Amino acid sequence: MSKVLVLGHKNPDTDSICSAISYAYLKNEMGMVAEPIRLGEVNNETLFALDTFKFDQPRLVTQVAKEATQVILVDHNERQQSADDIEEVQVIEVVDHHRIANFETTDPLYFRAEPVGCTTTILLKLFKENGVEVPSNIAGLMLSAIISDSLLFKSPTCTQQDIDAAAELAKIANVDADSYGLDLLKAGADLSNKTLVDLISLDAKEFEAGDHRFEVAQVNAIDVEEVMARQKELEVLMANAISTKGLGLFMFVVTDILNNNSVAIVLGEKASIVEAAFNSSVLDNRVLLPGVVSRKKQIVPVITEALS
Amino acid sequence: MSKVLVLGHKNPDTDSICSAISYAYLKNEMGMVAEPIRLGEVNNETLFALDTFKFDQPRLVTQVAKEATQVILVDHNERQQSADDIEEVQVIEVVDHHRIANFETTDPLYFRAEPVGCTTTILLKLFKENGVEVPSNIAGLMLSAIISDSLLFKSPTCTQQDIDAAAELAKIANVDADSYGLDLLKAGADLSNKTLVDLISLDAKEFEAGDHRFEVAQVNAIDVEEVMARQKELEVLMANAISTKGLGLFMFVVTDILNNNSVAIVLGEKASIVEAAFNSSVLDNRVLLPGVVSRKKQIVPVITEALS
Repeated sequence: MSKVLVLGHKNPDTDSICSAISYAYLKNEMGMVAEPIRLGEVNNETLFALDTFKFDQPRLVTQVAKEATQVILVDHNERQQSADDIEEVQVIEVVDHHRIANFETTDPLYFRAEPVGCTTTILLKLFKENGVEVPSNIAGLMLSAIISDSLLFKSPTCTQQDIDAAAELAKIANVDADSYGLDLLKAGADLSNKTLVDLISLDAKEFEAGDHRFEVAQVNAIDVEEVMARQKELEVLMANAISTKGLGLFMFVVTDILNNNSVAIVLGEKASIVEAAFNSSVLDNRVLLPGVVSRKKQIVPVITEALS
Repeated sequence: MSKVLVLGHKNPDTDSICSAISYAYLKNEMGMVAEPIRLGEVNNETLFALDTFKFDQPRLVTQVAKEATQVILVDHNERQQSADDIEEVQVIEVVDHHRIANFETTDPLYFRAEPVGCTTTILLKLFKENGVEVPSNIAGLMLSAIISDSLLFKSPTCTQQDIDAAAELAKIANVDADSYGLDLLKAGADLSNKTLVDLISLDAKEFEAGDHRFEVAQVNAIDVEEVMARQKELEVLMANAISTKGLGLFMFVVTDILNNNSVAIVLGEKASIVEAAFNSSVLDNRVLLPGVVSRKKQIVPVITEALS
């Protein structure tokens, strides 16, 4: 049997990395030869989780077709968020918690998407459905992903299922979810060693709506103004991305993880839609987004609707 | 809570109708107000199943947006196979066993597709996962769908999971799967009262591949030559559909359910691809397809590949 690669999205976040490792573990236990890989650099938050639970980073693979004919996608399904050569391999499974778009197969496959806050909440079900025990260190990674995606259970994307799964995983991993979770988020919000390029590419995702492409980059911060002090320099990079990628809108979102608000820099010929879409004024390319912390639930659907 | 409509594909087959009824039952048990509907006429095979297990036909609804804001799709996901106004409602769930294509949402949803032979095989899992017992008459419908989609377990789409689910459902429904199954298939293969229009529209599905649209209609028969005797008349209707719908290829497949072979009539400017795709000569617009019984597994991927 040839090896199946298990991969999360580009600009991997903690869920993408931890889901790839955890699901590859499950598939191996079920008799498949599966290897988790990553499409890009691992962020500080994820590194903290990997260090805590004693995992190495998955191997960086950018051309999947060179290594495998079959892949499993976790934590994403849209092709522009996946490996650049994803069209050249067969996607045999998807486990995800995002909207479905730009995804097409010629054959039936296993596709499991659920409207929960984190991919590993679904993975915990798959461990149970297949009668495989979650090892303690894998449970730690899966818990980390839930804490990360739910901003320690405070994001509107967080469901009761995520809370229950986290409680179960914390017990298996033998950690206190709240204190470990705050340390994890703080590790991710430490932007002191980040370059400007890091900031806008760390957790950036591209989307399509109507005839438009847009990108939403998000960073978590303790001190939002520290990031916003670099606004003018960030705008140069954003304008560059807009022209290179042909984007109608680039939104750079800085989320205050302690107070659960965001502020965004918006650029692009479609930037004007942001005012009406969020009912908030854009001043100096900057818009306040009170109570907004979730790109998936509070930003992408709003922009998609406005652009369609 | 407003009512959620549960619907299978256009030109509904036994799986589409029985899955809609069965899943609506499950969702109602779980506290949702759900109603199964159908997008078209019920075929003879499905009628036999409904009669046997004492169900009325679901209500015919062709404009779903007039009645609901949210729908659940079973046994399909491609928008051209769904209600004409599907874009006007929110798809909150999909349970399916086909390839994924032409499907897009703005929000996360519950999407459960598995590469098994029948939707109700997945539904049986969902009953169990949600701790709801399958009533005897619902089990009969779910069994009927598996028998129909798997041609009594002989189609290459049939998996061990389908066989196991059918055995479990037959026990709950208290019927012998093999003898009931043969009666069910025979009821469906009775084409004696079918008009020409019935024949080419009974179980017809449209697909897209590359820049082309193609349609594959399939009928099950005991006496294949009885159907093929009407080839010239069928070709007139097929040519009409090709020009009306802008199809590159129309394939009308007659499947011999006793011997598990098919013969097809092929028309359209792309009809020539069929020879190479199936490694079989087209004579008088007719091609023999030995061992081919599954549109999903043995026809659509082959045509899609050839047209892409």
